[in-house]
Amino acid sequence: MTRRGYPEAVYCAGKTPDQVHAIAARIGAGARAASDIQGGATTLFTRADRDHAASVLAALPDAADHCDAGLLAWPPHPPDPTGGTVLVVTAGTSDLAVAREAELSAAYLGRRTHLIADVGVAGLHRILARLPELRAADVIVVAAGMDGALPSVVAGLVEVPVVALPTSVGYGAAFDGLAPLLTMLNACAPGVAVVNIDNGYGAGHLAAQIARHPRPGATDSSAIHSP
Amino acid sequence: MTRRGYPEAVYCAGKTPDQVHAIAARIGAGARAASDIQGGATTLFTRADRDHAASVLAALPDAADHCDAGLLAWPPHPPDPTGGTVLVVTAGTSDLAVAREAELSAAYLGRRTHLIADVGVAGLHRILARLPELRAADVIVVAAGMDGALPSVVAGLVEVPVVALPTSVGYGAAFDGLAPLLTMLNACAPGVAVVNIDNGYGAGHLAAQIARHPRPGATDSSAIHSP
Amino acid sequence: MTRRGYPEAVYCAGKTPDQVHAIAARIGAGARAASDIQGGATTLFTRADRDHAASVLAALPDAADHCDAGLLAWPPHPPDPTGGTVLVVTAGTSDLAVAREAELSAAYLGRRTHLIADVGVAGLHRILARLPELRAADVIVVAAGMDGALPSVVAGLVEVPVVALPTSVGYGAAFDGLAPLLTMLNACAPGVAVVNIDNGYGAGHLAAQIARHPRPGATDSSAIHSP
Amino acid sequence: MTRRGYPEAVYCAGKTPDQVHAIAARIGAGARAASDIQGGATTLFTRADRDHAASVLAALPDAADHCDAGLLAWPPHPPDPTGGTVLVVTAGTSDLAVAREAELSAAYLGRRTHLIADVGVAGLHRILARLPELRAADVIVVAAGMDGALPSVVAGLVEVPVVALPTSVGYGAAFDGLAPLLTMLNACAPGVAVVNIDNGYGAGHLAAQIARHPRPGATDSSAIHSP
Amino acid sequence: MTRRGYPEAVYCAGKTPDQVHAIAARIGAGARAASDIQGGATTLFTRADRDHAASVLAALPDAADHCDAGLLAWPPHPPDPTGGTVLVVTAGTSDLAVAREAELSAAYLGRRTHLIADVGVAGLHRILARLPELRAADVIVVAAGMDGALPSVVAGLVEVPVVALPTSVGYGAAFDGLAPLLTMLNACAPGVAVVNIDNGYGAGHLAAQIARHPRPGATDSSAIHSP
Amino acid sequence: MTRRGYPEAVYCAGKTPDQVHAIAARIGAGARAASDIQGGATTLFTRADRDHAASVLAALPDAADHCDAGLLAWPPHPPDPTGGTVLVVTAGTSDLAVAREAELSAAYLGRRTHLIADVGVAGLHRILARLPELRAADVIVVAAGMDGALPSVVAGLVEVPVVALPTSVGYGAAFDGLAPLLTMLNACAPGVAVVNIDNGYGAGHLAAQIARHPRPGATDSSAIHSP
Amino acid sequence: MTRRGYPEAVYCAGKTPDQVHAIAARIGAGARAASDIQGGATTLFTRADRDHAASVLAALPDAADHCDAGLLAWPPHPPDPTGGTVLVVTAGTSDLAVAREAELSAAYLGRRTHLIADVGVAGLHRILARLPELRAADVIVVAAGMDGALPSVVAGLVEVPVVALPTSVGYGAAFDGLAPLLTMLNACAPGVAVVNIDNGYGAGHLAAQIARHPRPGATDSSAIHSP
Amino acid sequence: MTRRGYPEAVYCAGKTPDQVHAIAARIGAGARAASDIQGGATTLFTRADRDHAASVLAALPDAADHCDAGLLAWPPHPPDPTGGTVLVVTAGTSDLAVAREAELSAAYLGRRTHLIADVGVAGLHRILARLPELRAADVIVVAAGMDGALPSVVAGLVEVPVVALPTSVGYGAAFDGLAPLLTMLNACAPGVAVVNIDNGYGAGHLAAQIARHPRPGATDSSAIHSP
Repeated sequence: MTRRGYPEAVYCAGKTPDQVHAIAARIGAGARAASDIQGGATTLFTRADRDHAASVLAALPDAADHCDAGLLAWPPHPPDPTGGTVLVVTAGTSDLAVAREAELSAAYLGRRTHLIADVGVAGLHRILARLPELRAADVIVVAAGMDGALPSVVAGLVEVPVVALPTSVGYGAAFDGLAPLLTMLNACAPGVAVVNIDNGYGAGHLAAQIARHPRPGATDSSAIHSP
Repeated sequence: MTRRGYPEAVYCAGKTPDQVHAIAARIGAGARAASDIQGGATTLFTRADRDHAASVLAALPDAADHCDAGLLAWPPHPPDPTGGTVLVVTAGTSDLAVAREAELSAAYLGRRTHLIADVGVAGLHRILARLPELRAADVIVVAAGMDGALPSVVAGLVEVPVVALPTSVGYGAAFDGLAPLLTMLNACAPGVAVVNIDNGYGAGHLAAQIARHPRPGATDSSAIHSP
Repeated sequence: MTRRGYPEAVYCAGKTPDQVHAIAARIGAGARAASDIQGGATTLFTRADRDHAASVLAALPDAADHCDAGLLAWPPHPPDPTGGTVLVVTAGTSDLAVAREAELSAAYLGRRTHLIADVGVAGLHRILARLPELRAADVIVVAAGMDGALPSVVAGLVEVPVVALPTSVGYGAAFDGLAPLLTMLNACAPGVAVVNIDNGYGAGHLAAQIARHPRPGATDSSAIHSP
Repeated sequence: MTRRGYPEAVYCAGKTPDQVHAIAARIGAGARAASDIQGGATTLFTRADRDHAASVLAALPDAADHCDAGLLAWPPHPPDPTGGTVLVVTAGTSDLAVAREAELSAAYLGRRTHLIADVGVAGLHRILARLPELRAADVIVVAAGMDGALPSVVAGLVEVPVVALPTSVGYGAAFDGLAPLLTMLNACAPGVAVVNIDNGYGAGHLAAQIARHPRPGATDSSAIHSP
Repeated sequence: MTRRGYPEAVYCAGKTPDQVHAIAARIGAGARAASDIQGGATTLFTRADRDHAASVLAALPDAADHCDAGLLAWPPHPPDPTGGTVLVVTAGTSDLAVAREAELSAAYLGRRTHLIADVGVAGLHRILARLPELRAADVIVVAAGMDGALPSVVAGLVEVPVVALPTSVGYGAAFDGLAPLLTMLNACAPGVAVVNIDNGYGAGHLAAQIARHPRPGATDSSAIHSP
Repeated sequence: MTRRGYPEAVYCAGKTPDQVHAIAARIGAGARAASDIQGGATTLFTRADRDHAASVLAALPDAADHCDAGLLAWPPHPPDPTGGTVLVVTAGTSDLAVAREAELSAAYLGRRTHLIADVGVAGLHRILARLPELRAADVIVVAAGMDGALPSVVAGLVEVPVVALPTSVGYGAAFDGLAPLLTMLNACAPGVAVVNIDNGYGAGHLAAQIARHPRPGATDSSAIHSP
Repeated sequence: MTRRGYPEAVYCAGKTPDQVHAIAARIGAGARAASDIQGGATTLFTRADRDHAASVLAALPDAADHCDAGLLAWPPHPPDPTGGTVLVVTAGTSDLAVAREAELSAAYLGRRTHLIADVGVAGLHRILARLPELRAADVIVVAAGMDGALPSVVAGLVEVPVVALPTSVGYGAAFDGLAPLLTMLNACAPGVAVVNIDNGYGAGHLAAQIARHPRPGATDSSAIHSP
Repeated sequence: MTRRGYPEAVYCAGKTPDQVHAIAARIGAGARAASDIQGGATTLFTRADRDHAASVLAALPDAADHCDAGLLAWPPHPPDPTGGTVLVVTAGTSDLAVAREAELSAAYLGRRTHLIADVGVAGLHRILARLPELRAADVIVVAAGMDGALPSVVAGLVEVPVVALPTSVGYGAAFDGLAPLLTMLNACAPGVAVVNIDNGYGAGHLAAQIARHPRPGATDSSAIHSP
């Protein structure tokens, strides 16, 4: 637990499986004596490959292993949701891994989440067909690579903040995510909060913070479920 | 009024004074018949130099002219504040113009605002002395040029979202704001929402959206005033 | 006249008014003896400031002076239109000068042209309201700065080629047009032809070439006029 | 089929073979009930490695597998050609894979195609020897890496649009295709439409759109064949 | 021995194991006849992978093999420390390999060294808790990736020079260390000496030079040890 | 006085003359009651143009106005020198303004300074002729634009640290100082501390910190004078 | 005179007129006692604006003032030509100032020179028409901005070295000469020597060095004159 | 044989071994009937890995296989040298592969060659000790990575042209050769001809062209041998 009251994240990408195992073991030992009201002392292991995952599971056998997002969590269950709803939207199916990291991060911070995939701007009817869902969310994470145009379009359709999550999907002049990053920083519509390329964890964390309080007078939004 | 329910912004930088005058005149004529519950049909003229300002005032003589921020507003008075408090923090005094654009934008979107200047990381005691104010805000805009390190530090000290606003203050390898922009995108602390370089309007707008609802059970925060 | 059968363009930006005058005088003298079936031996003077314009007019007093586009043409009247229709669309009003350069270039190459301004993606209803016009064109030039997202959206709505024209409108991470240029090169929708930043002449020329033949069986499209 | 009336493309590069297999199976099932006048409901699988290809063929055993271009198509046969002729030209033999992707894409969109390889500007006699073929085409795709100079030269020799296709062939200051991309965006000759680096599919698609109508009064161009 | 009086460094990264072996053998043969007062004719083999290490050890069996830093040294023992103390600080645990290269380089140049890990700016309490150690050092090397903000903060807390060592830790807009490099070059606090990305050897060498003389009147600082 | 015990610097470039005047007046009023052992409470006004200088002098009439370096200092006299000697070297005469800013900054921090101009690497005899002076210094600041090669050469000739100061002198591919900055970061010789482009103040400050203690047993170096 | 036996060049761009005057006066005084066999002790003042020129002429009234190239020379007359012939070729008329700087530099180093303007690759017939002149030269300087394609083409047509001189002519993605610089570095044809953007002096100097010896058995090439 | 009279080069890096084999076989068959006075119809296979080499040798068993340079040549023996001497110099041992490619390319174009390794600027005595050899050459190729400073220094010591060959040796801010490339383009000394990063073939070819004629009155330079 950091002193800010949120789950701790262990970024695995630059670490050896042994280092990750040592951290996981220390967390398992230490966390038994700690408690936390808001986040339940959850630890997220992000950007974990299969070797990292094995290391985590060796130390924390009941950890949740979300391999589609390269993310493990311990304790395995997200807290009961509080606050508002976080909607995650992707431009293409190739953006799904990063988008799932965002969704899970928000869920483990205690938000209700929902994910809509493959509604890029080349076929506007797809995103326009989802307007009711877009407008029911308290914050929307929009993941897109290549031209990165979707956050601008979504921000123009809703009143809530949009977290723009550029991905490294693409080739050539996409320059590993630089192109969608610049697009999002220059979004014509105000209300767009940009995070680093492929930073699903950061996008989900930020969205969870933005939606930390329920909308005043909000009725139960349980009609919207994440698939 | 855009259909999203927020004030409209007229970006003056790329327009001639005549073009700005024509827009201001049209707004003056048209707005008399329109109304808006949330934003009061306010129009903001951003990045206005003195010639742009004269053009606006010729058409809308009672517009508020905030020359320290290059911003005019009409009708001149911000709406009564609702929602939470937006705190704007700057690393240096040279960041003030952009920071004021952020503060005023948030105020005209209906938020209570507050500004703390010149608390850059080279003298940590300055930012640490303001911890109570930092922790009383519902969202914090942090404007910084040069190394752009302040948002990382602030985000590590608070639980609320931080809107990181890179400025073009600096020289050489600051590359007109690119250096602080990259710093902010790579912030070690989660919860950092980045906007474009010198985009005070965007930062203020985003902060106002994030703080659009009051903190549940919040007591009156009127003890904190903008100077 | 170049040997390809199109009007010649004199790029004035890097030339002194004296140099431009000398070229204009030479063209005036030489063109009286030349003829050209397709382009009528028209010469376009592009990126002409007021001093350049005076130099052209001193040598060719009857030249058409389109100061909103920094373009002069001689002989002054475009040829009677042949081929298909070129539609020029802009994301914002600040893109108008470049867009007009594109429109005029296409017109002087002998196309029927049409211009729609200020239909950026932040307000999708604006572009969707113009669908019939979009779908009546034989080629569409889309000028946009900042996020440069409009060509992707337009290309997803029509069957004809889209010429994407990035502009230097914007600031900060727009990097003088680099951001919209990259966006357009990475457009999700196929059928997008990109030209250089602010290259209205090139966009209009390319569009005129693409639409050089009328659509087979096309009825008269004269119901669509440029304002 | 997208709503624009063209074949659908499945970009395989960022997908697992399982994901590609699932898409191929769904297309096989769904397409049996669909029809399309212009494109025959063709699906293109682009940037497919050998594993992707196996996945496609497992679901669609009669798909055409063009391994020299990393492209599969189903149904396997291009439609009968309509409209004009698309000529694809390469500067070097290393540009062939991307050039073939362009040629096949145009063919599956229903155009007659033709390919000329290895006529870079370092030996002008090679390109000048092909002038009759260049001038018989309705649109020319020019693929080049390294200095990317060939599109400028070709555009100066013909009246039809040139689609400039930069490739990542080269090393050092070629910067993975950035150098030829910039060269093509700055082409001295007008009439050059640039696409993303290595985007053979996009170049072929755009060329097919440009040549979608036959030249009025065109005689049969069947004397020109693709090898 | 170079003529400047410091140990020689053999940069292994671009060499084959055979080449490294030949160099090590030559050093072993040659050094037996040489002597050096300041550095003891030490040779450092930097950026050595396991194959390089085996090659060195085959020629110099008693060389010290510091595999956590990719560094070997021969003769194996650092000289007795003279001059001041070099403190090495890291923002994260992923910066450790580079930081250790810096620490060892300084030690083999004859300085007393000390290392503090994982005190990044996202949790200021961590760095503030180490103030006494920071203020006891004669020079501080600060290794950081991602936002690279730690050197600015440290330089604001001490009077001695800070050697800022950017690392390639991070992803996306960290651009392989470019982001922290720019941050450090733009440090708000004066007294920051920047070296190349991941250049632990250079940072340690520079720090050892800066601290080559003991602080006048310094009491024995042996209470501070490297772990 | 900052809490680190060094003179304070007021960076004027981004401030209006009025703002600079207000700061100068406040310093004049406040400093009368303060004292400082090491730095004498000196304030440096850096990057001051003539208007800034007039503002400073209006508030602090006895300030020293070093217009060749864009620097003013108050109180006007540097403290009596302590510690070692700072030598400043320039590659060309165009680097002099930045070099003088470095020299004066070091002098006002209390060091003995010396400046050698125009000894770039294109004429090695010039730098080799100054070897005795190079080797007498305790730290050397090397200012160079264009190829920025001089710090590498100097660092290979001496045992003391070299502060590499890239300047924006040059054109074209010098990219406003980026080229010499990169050269210096990649210096073949160890012992090179790089600062930001044109950051004379930072280079001088760092050099003064490095040389803050006299060389043990140093004889009086007063034979070397700054011209 | 430098010790290499060539004229000295004074780069004026970064100097004040007073500084240039002082240098010119010193040269005038000093050169009267010096002599040089190869270069005649010529001094070139490059990148001189009108103020610089006045300063030079005040000190050296008989200096040659080539204002079309921003270059002055003293003594005013080039030496009698020796060695081979330097041909300078430009892609456009806007490249003329830089090209003339190259031509004059070569002439003052003692070469016979010749200049051909405006033979860019968009109209190949123009360059092909000059083949005899191209093939009569001993070295060819090719100046080009925008796509920078001309050196590749020329190098493919001749056997002698080509000095590629990128210019900052262009806009947008020409990035002030970066695009033609990259094009030239990636030239498909071998035998291309690249210099800095707009570095006419360097190109002319290099060409003069390359052609310092006459072609063995060369007949008098005086039939080729510079206009 | 190209029409320019030089050996042909086959760039293998982007080709499959089968493609290279086919080319080699075709050359073997075709070359038996061709002849060339200057270059002896030599073909160079550049950037050949071991698989490429095997393919070449299968078709041309007597080809010379220079694996230290990734280069094969057929016919295997360079022509008898004519013209002047090409000297190749490297800053470090890691630059040797590229330097050898340059040396061999010049040798197969018919020049006498010589190679000096590891004389970087960090130890000036090494390069100064080789002055007689430097001054005996007719052209010097200087290969350097990292800071790329050696060509500037060498060009300041000799009268002949220097071909600057940047290599990708280095890390971090060397940016794969960009840093030395920029250094060389900004060389303070005139007479520097830059080629692409790692372009040993191009450097050797250019040097051979520059030295194609012997120095008039040159005595036999056979005292200088390549090791």
